Amino acid sequence: MIKTDILIIGAGPVGLFTVFEAGLLKLRCHLIDALPIPGGQLAEIYPKKPIYDIPGYPSVLAGDLVKNLEEQIAPFEPTYTLGERAETIEKLEDGSFVVTTSKGTKHNAPVVAIAGGLGSFEPRKPPIKEIVDYEDKGVEYIIREPNFYKDKKIIIAGGGDSALDWSIFLTDIAKEVTLVHRRTEFRGALDSVEKVKELVKKGKIKLLTESEVIEIHGKDKVESVTVKNSTEGNKIVEVDHFIPLFGLSPKLGPIANWGLNIEKNAIVVDNATDYSTNIPGIYAIGDVNTYTGKLKLILCGFHEATIMVQSAYKLVNPDAKKLVMKYTTVSGVTGFDGVKKEQKKAITSKI
Amino acid sequence: MIKTDILIIGAGPVGLFTVFEAGLLKLRCHLIDALPIPGGQLAEIYPKKPIYDIPGYPSVLAGDLVKNLEEQIAPFEPTYTLGERAETIEKLEDGSFVVTTSKGTKHNAPVVAIAGGLGSFEPRKPPIKEIVDYEDKGVEYIIREPNFYKDKKIIIAGGGDSALDWSIFLTDIAKEVTLVHRRTEFRGALDSVEKVKELVKKGKIKLLTESEVIEIHGKDKVESVTVKNSTEGNKIVEVDHFIPLFGLSPKLGPIANWGLNIEKNAIVVDNATDYSTNIPGIYAIGDVNTYTGKLKLILCGFHEATIMVQSAYKLVNPDAKKLVMKYTTVSGVTGFDGVKKEQKKAITSKI
Repeated sequence: MIKTDILIIGAGPVGLFTVFEAGLLKLRCHLIDALPIPGGQLAEIYPKKPIYDIPGYPSVLAGDLVKNLEEQIAPFEPTYTLGERAETIEKLEDGSFVVTTSKGTKHNAPVVAIAGGLGSFEPRKPPIKEIVDYEDKGVEYIIREPNFYKDKKIIIAGGGDSALDWSIFLTDIAKEVTLVHRRTEFRGALDSVEKVKELVKKGKIKLLTESEVIEIHGKDKVESVTVKNSTEGNKIVEVDHFIPLFGLSPKLGPIANWGLNIEKNAIVVDNATDYSTNIPGIYAIGDVNTYTGKLKLILCGFHEATIMVQSAYKLVNPDAKKLVMKYTTVSGVTGFDGVKKEQKKAITSKI
Repeated sequence: MIKTDILIIGAGPVGLFTVFEAGLLKLRCHLIDALPIPGGQLAEIYPKKPIYDIPGYPSVLAGDLVKNLEEQIAPFEPTYTLGERAETIEKLEDGSFVVTTSKGTKHNAPVVAIAGGLGSFEPRKPPIKEIVDYEDKGVEYIIREPNFYKDKKIIIAGGGDSALDWSIFLTDIAKEVTLVHRRTEFRGALDSVEKVKELVKKGKIKLLTESEVIEIHGKDKVESVTVKNSTEGNKIVEVDHFIPLFGLSPKLGPIANWGLNIEKNAIVVDNATDYSTNIPGIYAIGDVNTYTGKLKLILCGFHEATIMVQSAYKLVNPDAKKLVMKYTTVSGVTGFDGVKKEQKKAITSKI
């Protein structure tokens, strides 16, 4: 059982910054995230995209913001359970919570802060009835290991960067690459589009536009699919793998069943006080929460985390005296290893 | 009359960032500040001090944060009235406000955002009854123009960096420099303390410790002061200028008389909605406001500014449709000069 003061569900920017504000109050944090790395959407979906509305950064790449946050919180030694999704929560008699992940890892803390962002990102699936029966039997929504497709016949569906880039990449690995797209226009980096054109000319990619996969066939695994062309009608294409790359869509996931007040896929919190949910001891901060006037902005999550830890402090230390906030500019930042970051002190000296 | 959409009182970090969030909504801002430069306390009081709790900055010098904010808001072309203090406010029949400064400059806007921080910083004065009669007649609390003291006899009082540094600096300009301090210990940078010691040895600074100025004499201007030493008693020192450098202390100032609800030197706002004050159209954000659980942190002010401008938008554009927030990462940032900052766009291309 992993024990901590504040168990943070979600290691996106808001979850990460929570570690800093909690650390200033000498509270320890452990973070759970379904993704294999910290940073949430910023790390997984758009690490190379610039963000313009982080205060004090005229522009910052999402991936760099994550790196900076990790450096900022390092003194407070956060620990992580990554690549596991928080599944269930249970309240113990002492008032603390036990959160168990998809892999069975158990965590215990008096305070749970849900910083789950838009939720876990799940692949958008094409509307083919039997597709669920073929998942992991030739149907994959995410390419995890390219060599898995060595000498296989594959059909990729989609019109974005992901479909273009993987089609290009896999021509060197797979036996046959077919790219299917409903339109004739692709939305992706110019050089990717050019590269695909070139590979189509060379016969390395079979391109089927104005087409979509409408049926999957095969006994125990994918053996072929039916491709419907808007003018030419249907045809069967023999393939080992069907890979629809239609993007990821956010889902609140198992948290939706934790007994929290949910409105429009978000957790209702009290923004007038401390971003607490309807369950005492559970808070929700960042994009995962909602209240009147809520803006799903990272900078708002930073504020919410900062206010929230003040309330969490009282739960973790019920007998503590009133907390007096100290300014980092005045008092510096002391890590859990005792190392202190501070400005060069003025000297008190006798003349 | 200067006209704008949002008139911001206070050009500290929160006032500056308001320009950015307002700009995203196509609202123009004008800022008033009593200080001669933007940045508030960060620029005036501790530009060289590191701040550790700005999210995404493991450490940033206060002065650099101001510079970055100025760069971030530049596309939205803020305008300034600097070196003038907002004195009075008046509501016109059309619901808009007119704010007049200490120098009589008038500003008109439908929305006023008070981001006044801890207020204007006023010098701490020594408890000498007659001192007000000598202000600007030989008594100065701030050194604005060193050459003003050319060939004068001056007495500086204080035990901090300011007193030390000006004593050193003015030895080359003034005819005679006396430094008076109540204690024998000074609190300042080590090299300043050493430098003063050296100048005392060389007879360039007269040092009077365990002493304080208790009386000022002179007909129309300062001619001499009485210095009381804790063991040696009183003596008269002939001087042209008496400069007490005891630091600055924040005062809410004339804003306190604007009819706003004030609690403990701060303006009460509704943090559950939009940081509005009791007067519709006037908001208060950052350190100047108060609500249950308020933390006087820059990052909280950034959030408050962001929420506030959404509400201001409705006041400025009463007939506008509901505002749909766009992400800067997706939509970029378009300045008022039409220049757009955005990530390299994906290309939509036909194959």
